[in-house]
Amino acid sequence: MNIESIRPFAASRPRSNDAINVKTQIRIGLVGFGTVGSGAAKILFDNADLIARRVGVPLSLTRIVDIDVTADRGVVLPEGVLSPDLDGLMNDPSIDIVIELVGGYDFAKHVVLEAIGKGKHVVTANKALLAVHGEEVFAAANRAGVDVGFEASVGGGIPILRSLTEGLVANHCLSIVGIMNGTSNYILTQMKREGREFQDALAQAQAAGYAEADPTFDIEGIDTAHKLAIMVSLAYGSPVNVKDVYTEGIQRLSALDVRYASELGMTVKLLGVAKFRDGEIEARVHPTMIDKTAPLAQVHGVYNAIHVVGDAVGDVMFYGQGAGSLPTGSAVVSDVVDIARNVRKRACGRVPPTSFQMDCRVPIRIRPMEELTTRYYLRCMVPDQPGVLSKIAGILGNHSISIASVLQQGRQEGQTVPVVIMTHRASEHAVQTALQDVNRLSSLVSEPITLIRVEDQES
Amino acid sequence: MNIESIRPFAASRPRSNDAINVKTQIRIGLVGFGTVGSGAAKILFDNADLIARRVGVPLSLTRIVDIDVTADRGVVLPEGVLSPDLDGLMNDPSIDIVIELVGGYDFAKHVVLEAIGKGKHVVTANKALLAVHGEEVFAAANRAGVDVGFEASVGGGIPILRSLTEGLVANHCLSIVGIMNGTSNYILTQMKREGREFQDALAQAQAAGYAEADPTFDIEGIDTAHKLAIMVSLAYGSPVNVKDVYTEGIQRLSALDVRYASELGMTVKLLGVAKFRDGEIEARVHPTMIDKTAPLAQVHGVYNAIHVVGDAVGDVMFYGQGAGSLPTGSAVVSDVVDIARNVRKRACGRVPPTSFQMDCRVPIRIRPMEELTTRYYLRCMVPDQPGVLSKIAGILGNHSISIASVLQQGRQEGQTVPVVIMTHRASEHAVQTALQDVNRLSSLVSEPITLIRVEDQES
Repeated sequence: MNIESIRPFAASRPRSNDAINVKTQIRIGLVGFGTVGSGAAKILFDNADLIARRVGVPLSLTRIVDIDVTADRGVVLPEGVLSPDLDGLMNDPSIDIVIELVGGYDFAKHVVLEAIGKGKHVVTANKALLAVHGEEVFAAANRAGVDVGFEASVGGGIPILRSLTEGLVANHCLSIVGIMNGTSNYILTQMKREGREFQDALAQAQAAGYAEADPTFDIEGIDTAHKLAIMVSLAYGSPVNVKDVYTEGIQRLSALDVRYASELGMTVKLLGVAKFRDGEIEARVHPTMIDKTAPLAQVHGVYNAIHVVGDAVGDVMFYGQGAGSLPTGSAVVSDVVDIARNVRKRACGRVPPTSFQMDCRVPIRIRPMEELTTRYYLRCMVPDQPGVLSKIAGILGNHSISIASVLQQGRQEGQTVPVVIMTHRASEHAVQTALQDVNRLSSLVSEPITLIRVEDQES
Repeated sequence: MNIESIRPFAASRPRSNDAINVKTQIRIGLVGFGTVGSGAAKILFDNADLIARRVGVPLSLTRIVDIDVTADRGVVLPEGVLSPDLDGLMNDPSIDIVIELVGGYDFAKHVVLEAIGKGKHVVTANKALLAVHGEEVFAAANRAGVDVGFEASVGGGIPILRSLTEGLVANHCLSIVGIMNGTSNYILTQMKREGREFQDALAQAQAAGYAEADPTFDIEGIDTAHKLAIMVSLAYGSPVNVKDVYTEGIQRLSALDVRYASELGMTVKLLGVAKFRDGEIEARVHPTMIDKTAPLAQVHGVYNAIHVVGDAVGDVMFYGQGAGSLPTGSAVVSDVVDIARNVRKRACGRVPPTSFQMDCRVPIRIRPMEELTTRYYLRCMVPDQPGVLSKIAGILGNHSISIASVLQQGRQEGQTVPVVIMTHRASEHAVQTALQDVNRLSSLVSEPITLIRVEDQES
């Protein structure tokens, strides 16, 4: 494409508030030159002309700060751009936007709040920071009159937060259900396709570069809970304490249950689930059985997908790569562009980082997990002898839990065999209490019953 | 949710350009109170509090214009809102935004240009208008310094245009491939599931309310071509003449070919396809065979899905209801909110309607269809006798078309039988020329060969 012949940076026509003090360039500083940082930098350099033609002014990445100034990240930088000098960046009055990509809590928070304090706009991909310290960051940004962008914190390159706050802005959000962590989805995909046990699939994911050496945040559902908390707070205009999000990971899932799911026409996914119910919000993360024909069941490997139901739009799904240098970098730069467009038009605060106006938010109760009602998959390891199932069914019945179907394959007289019970909708409290009752009776089960919640993917 | 106790309309904090002349309300006029119009009105009334809490000022739908002021659309309107008085709306200086939902070309264009001429911002769902007269509308809006929103023109409630211009703004778009017309996708789904012939499935779609009495635009691919032209012009910053989009509908598709597709592990969909190739753009609409496991093959009934590949983000897919009163209304209101946010911050023109700055666009050549290379499905009706296939293969070979596989099921000596040929990648020009050669020989084929293009859904 020949773009030599055009004037890429001229605005189409001066408007009222362009006339004075027109920005001819937006300057950007980047803190943290790791995987996502190098992706964002590569995009800002390689696609600079394209971006300038869209925004109307060039975006110039003039400072990158990282302790490591020697490693090759595969990005050719102009001389003097990369340094370990954070103060130099913070005290450079020409920098309009600071991108924070150091990750973690403390230092990242310091960087973000210092930048805000200096009157700079902030872009971050740090879901942990936002899920835990988001309110503090947003309040500081509001006081300083600067923008905070964090599209990259959820769903990698998928423009899901922008869709919640802009594209679906006219909707009461009825539910958000999604696969939000590529590492655990990769592991589950391997367990299903190759029949592997969790530890084996994890080791393979680590070898393939899809899981970190310490995979805790990913496999224990913490990362998904952070992302869900961010989405819920945007969708409902209610601050969310991530501790109120029930969080259960995939680390205790067995190959046996993955296989039974297939036999039942279902697939196990680690889902983040938020639903609006009678003025309250359900917000929970756990391994979930869904019908194998459901759209989310078609999402394999490191892909993410988020299914949103709005009262007007009905159901909408967003699908893409939930992580990686360039996909996440794409989301980072989309926020930089968004803010640059605001800077150019002096329209900062146009969309508040909280989606709702700060003083129009209303806390909504996050419903405790025991108030959930859903369907359950229960796998009981029982001695293969008459009467056992009827005793278990009796205990479930005492707790008003109705059985939809029972699956028992193979018989091994005198041995322990798995019996799979699918329940009708029941209350979490009743199910947990009933399982305690059953688990206490070693004559009935040789190990604690395995429970997996079933999601019907209606609103 | 109790929102009585909050001040929904107060901005969180005055900013520089809020201080003067603050808008305390954004007023909206709607022209065309049909299916989409009543959906948009219902959302603006029912979700008014929610929207005000997000935008910071209330949006007030104060005038609706339609010839029919008596029909019940299921929306309760304040007295005096609905009238046939278009001049009253246009000459009401308090109206900031005009929503055009009359459809068609001439009157819609008149409404849009008159509103722009009066300095009012415009929201429309009219893809036909934009695909044909978009350049004229955008130029007028640019001159008048007003915004034009048209998210609802593509993909119903799916925020796809906003994603192309904002969420994926940092990307060179490599391809856009999608199911963009719910009516034809519904018909194709019925043909596949129930083995119906096209005319039968169309009649059923009409009976079910999914196809109009005159379904020409939908089934002949014209609607998809309009939508593709709009997306291409946004993605590439190049004006697109919809006449340059090769357009072939589903009206000649037979149940036999749908069944063969299934036997070959594929599904037939009406796709809009745009690809960036060596500095040029492919833009085409036709029935297409895709692998039955491809994400787009999972899109059934009236749903739409659009698969975008960007150089940074990789592949992203958007899925949802592509039509209907409330889903399309949701997109209409998202544009109203977007413009209201601009009005409030005096930031109109923040994102140009052409996605690229008007003077930064560069015409890109739309590659003529005969320059396409892809794989082909060819069904030949041949006499069941030795030597026929080898003659056809010989003619294909003379045109450098290489055969990947041949499928011939059942034998009926002396009768006409279908033979299905799948080719390797070949040039459209070569295939069309070869088919002419074969079709001329009535000893080889009893009717013209049926051709369906095959898409591999790579970038």
